Amino acid sequence: MKSFLSIQDVSNLPALLKDALEIKKNPHLYAKLGQQKSMCLIFLNPSLRTRLSAQKAAFNLGLSTAVLDVGSQGWQLEFGDGIIMDSDKAEHIKEAAAVIGSYFDVVAIRAFAKLEDRNEDYSEQVMESFKKYCPVPIINMESGTGHPLQAFADLITIEENKMVAKPKVVLTWAPHPKPLPQAVANSFCRWIQAANFDLTITHPKGYELVDEAVGKATVVYNQQNALDGADFVYAKNWSSYTNYGKVLSKDPDWMVTQEKMNLTNQGKFMHCLPVRRNVIVEDAVLDSDQSLVIPQATNRVISMQTVLKNILEEMKK
Amino acid sequence: MKSFLSIQDVSNLPALLKDALEIKKNPHLYAKLGQQKSMCLIFLNPSLRTRLSAQKAAFNLGLSTAVLDVGSQGWQLEFGDGIIMDSDKAEHIKEAAAVIGSYFDVVAIRAFAKLEDRNEDYSEQVMESFKKYCPVPIINMESGTGHPLQAFADLITIEENKMVAKPKVVLTWAPHPKPLPQAVANSFCRWIQAANFDLTITHPKGYELVDEAVGKATVVYNQQNALDGADFVYAKNWSSYTNYGKVLSKDPDWMVTQEKMNLTNQGKFMHCLPVRRNVIVEDAVLDSDQSLVIPQATNRVISMQTVLKNILEEMKK
Amino acid sequence: MKSFLSIQDVSNLPALLKDALEIKKNPHLYAKLGQQKSMCLIFLNPSLRTRLSAQKAAFNLGLSTAVLDVGSQGWQLEFGDGIIMDSDKAEHIKEAAAVIGSYFDVVAIRAFAKLEDRNEDYSEQVMESFKKYCPVPIINMESGTGHPLQAFADLITIEENKMVAKPKVVLTWAPHPKPLPQAVANSFCRWIQAANFDLTITHPKGYELVDEAVGKATVVYNQQNALDGADFVYAKNWSSYTNYGKVLSKDPDWMVTQEKMNLTNQGKFMHCLPVRRNVIVEDAVLDSDQSLVIPQATNRVISMQTVLKNILEEMKK
Repeated sequence: MKSFLSIQDVSNLPALLKDALEIKKNPHLYAKLGQQKSMCLIFLNPSLRTRLSAQKAAFNLGLSTAVLDVGSQGWQLEFGDGIIMDSDKAEHIKEAAAVIGSYFDVVAIRAFAKLEDRNEDYSEQVMESFKKYCPVPIINMESGTGHPLQAFADLITIEENKMVAKPKVVLTWAPHPKPLPQAVANSFCRWIQAANFDLTITHPKGYELVDEAVGKATVVYNQQNALDGADFVYAKNWSSYTNYGKVLSKDPDWMVTQEKMNLTNQGKFMHCLPVRRNVIVEDAVLDSDQSLVIPQATNRVISMQTVLKNILEEMKK
Repeated sequence: MKSFLSIQDVSNLPALLKDALEIKKNPHLYAKLGQQKSMCLIFLNPSLRTRLSAQKAAFNLGLSTAVLDVGSQGWQLEFGDGIIMDSDKAEHIKEAAAVIGSYFDVVAIRAFAKLEDRNEDYSEQVMESFKKYCPVPIINMESGTGHPLQAFADLITIEENKMVAKPKVVLTWAPHPKPLPQAVANSFCRWIQAANFDLTITHPKGYELVDEAVGKATVVYNQQNALDGADFVYAKNWSSYTNYGKVLSKDPDWMVTQEKMNLTNQGKFMHCLPVRRNVIVEDAVLDSDQSLVIPQATNRVISMQTVLKNILEEMKK
Repeated sequence: MKSFLSIQDVSNLPALLKDALEIKKNPHLYAKLGQQKSMCLIFLNPSLRTRLSAQKAAFNLGLSTAVLDVGSQGWQLEFGDGIIMDSDKAEHIKEAAAVIGSYFDVVAIRAFAKLEDRNEDYSEQVMESFKKYCPVPIINMESGTGHPLQAFADLITIEENKMVAKPKVVLTWAPHPKPLPQAVANSFCRWIQAANFDLTITHPKGYELVDEAVGKATVVYNQQNALDGADFVYAKNWSSYTNYGKVLSKDPDWMVTQEKMNLTNQGKFMHCLPVRRNVIVEDAVLDSDQSLVIPQATNRVISMQTVLKNILEEMKK
C-alpha cells in the first residue's frame, strides 16, 4: 500500500482484513517495523479517538510520531495556483506538503468537510493536494467525503461478530442537533459493499447519499421495513447531500430504540462515536449486550496499525 | 496499587516512600518496566509542572505517552444518566472513558474544581466516573478536592530535609488575587498526617478546610503563634470551603516574610508553585537557602514515577 | 557546545558544518546519543517547521521530547525583580526556568520579538533569563533578535550548492503585508559573514539592520545592482529597525522575479519559509530548479540535530 486515502487504495481487502485480525491477536508482532521511521499527524479539525488510536498504533509499531494541531495555531493554507498571497494565508500547500514530507516517512491528515460548498468538499482539495505535493505516503484520518479508517474498523468489528457469511447490514440515518458531514456514511457504504455484504440504507427523503457511495445498496425510506431481519444496525447522522450541508429533519421517530432492534435478527448495534444518547439511539440499546460501539472504537487502533504496517512494508520493498 | 486517586489508594505509605527515595537515587532503575505499555494524560485544565513531570516520569520507565488537551478542543462531556443529549455535550463519559481505557494501560486525568457548586466539586464526578467506566488504572493529576501527586512530592521533600523524626509542619494560608481550589491544601493535610508528622494549620476565620482533611491537626487562627518552632512552613492560598469558592480576604499581613520565618526552628519554606512573589511570600524567603520550592517541584517526577512503577508492577502480577 | 543562543556559542564553525554534512549522510549515526536524556520544547509563539524539525532531530538521536505550547495556555511569566505579583502573571521566570531545567537535560525555546519596544526585544529578556535561571543547556528556536537554527540550515544549504569557494550572497528585503521581526535577517548576516562569504544586503532606505548584524557587509539600496553576479539570492521581509517594528514600504517592485534572477550568476533562490507567493517572490522562481527553499527547510532537521549532538556530547565530558 502506497497511500491510504480511500477503499480504492486497497488492492486486496481480504488480505488486509486477515492482517488486521492477526494484529489484533498479537499487537506487538511488528514492534520493530517502525524503527527509525517517523509519522506526522496533522489535525485541521479536532479529534479524540483518531488522535489517540493513531498514536497507540504507532507505539505498537515502534514508529515515532509528531502531532501538529493546525486549527489552534491558525495555520491558513493557500491552495490556489498563481495567487498573490497578500491576505491572511501565510503558506502555500506546495511548500507545506513538501517540507512536512521531507521530515517524515508517513503523513496522516484530518480535514473535515466544511459543508458550505459541495464541489469544494467533494473535490477533496486538502487530501489531493497533499498527495500531489507531499513526497511520502498519505493517510486519510477523515476527509471531506470519507473516513476509511473508521470504515475499516467497522468492517473488522463485523467480521469478528457476524454469524453468517453474508450478513444483512443496515445503515440508518438518525437525528442530530447539528449538521454533520457524510464522510462516515460514505465510507461505510463503500467498505461494506467491497466486502460483499448485503447493504440496506434507510433515511428520510432528501438524505440520499452520493451515487458512488450508494452503489448497489438497497435504499428504503421506511426505517422499520429496512431493519427487518438485520444482522447489524449502523446508526449515523449526516446532513443532506442534495440540499448540501442542510439539516432537513430532526425527527425523533428516527432514533434507534430497543423496540426497533426487536425487529432485527438479534441484530448488533453499531455507531462510530461520539454518540448522542437518547437522540441517535436510546440508552437501553447502547447499554445492552447488542451494542458494539466500544469494540468498534477499540478496532480503530487495529485499522490504523494494519494500514501503517502495510505502508511501512511497502517502503522496505 | 490499582489506581491512584487519593491517599486512600496507598496501602503502605512507608514502602511507597522507600520506593521514591530509591527511584530518586537511580531514575533509570525501572527503565524497561513500561515497555509495550502506554499512558494517556488527559488535561481538562492547563498544566505545566504536572504535564512535564508526568512525561518525564514516563520516559524514565520506557512508557509511551499520549497527551490529550481537552479544554482547547472544547470537548464537552455529559455525566448524567438518562439525559437526552441534544445540546452542546457531544459525548457521554460512559463511552469516552471506556474507549480511552481500551487504548491505554493507564489513564491520568486533571480536572480542577470549578468553585461554583461545592457538592459537585466534592462529589469528584470526573474522577469517580472515569474510575467507574474506564477499565484500566486511573491517576489523579489534581481533581476537585485533592492533588495527591503534589502531596506525595511534598512528603518526599520533607523526608529528605527533616532533622527530627517527627517534625512540626505548619500549613499557612496566604493571600492571592484569585479564588483557588482547596485541592493542594486538602491533600497536604492528609498525607502529612498519614506520615504521622505534627501538623498545624493556620488561616483567617472562614477558611476552615473540610473536616476529613483537617483530621487531628491543630488549627490556630494566629499565624505567628502557629509558626513558633516550625520545622517546615508550607504556604498556600485557597478559597473558602464554608462560603464556597469565595475570596474572603486578601490581607497582605498573611504573606510569609523573612521576619516570620525567624519565629520558626530554622524552618524550611515550601510551596507547590506557581507562586506569586511578594504576595504569597516575599523574595527574601524564596531566594534564601531555606526555600525548598525547587526541590519540591523536582520531586514531582519522583512521585509520578513511583506511582507509575507501583501500578505497572501490579499489572504484571 | 554548552548552549546555542547565537553564532557566538559556536567556537568552531567549520567543524560544526562538517558534523552537519556527516549527519546528513547518515541521520542515524548518533541514534543512541540521546538515550535516557530528554528535551523540552517551549513555544511562546506558533511554529510549524521548527516544531516538527526539532522533534525529528530528537527522534534521530533517541532523545525523548516533551512539547509545551505556552501561548495557548495563557502562561504569563513575570521577568521583573522585586515585583508584587498581584495581577495577571502567575509565575516568575526564576521558578519556571529552574523547574523545567530540573526535569529535562536540554530546553529549547521560541519567543518572537513583539515589535513594540526595541530595547525590550533586543535585550533578549526571555532567552537571557532562561540562560540565567535554567541549570541546563538552552537552544534558541527563534528569539527577539535571531534565528540561528535557520541561519545554520541556510549555511548548510549554501555549502551543499556553492560552485565557488567564496560565493557572492545577496540578502534582499522583499515586501510583505504584515510587520515581521528582523531575527532571520540578523542571523543570516552573522552566519554568512562568519563563514567568510561575500555578503551584500539590499533594501529600501529605512530598513537598515542593526550594526552588529550588518558587520562588514556591503549595503546597496538598488536591488538590481545588488543582484548583479549573485550566486545566492536570499529574500526576506523584515520591519524597520530604526523606525522600530513599522512597515515603511509594501512596494511590489522589490518582489524577486525571474527577470531579476537573470541578472545573477545563475544564482540560486533562498527563503526560510513560509513564503508569500507572488508577494515576496514570483511563482516562476519558486517553481524553478533555481529554488532551494525545500532543501533549506529540509536542513532544519540537520541544523537542530547537529546542535543537539554537540550539546549531548559536551554533557558526557
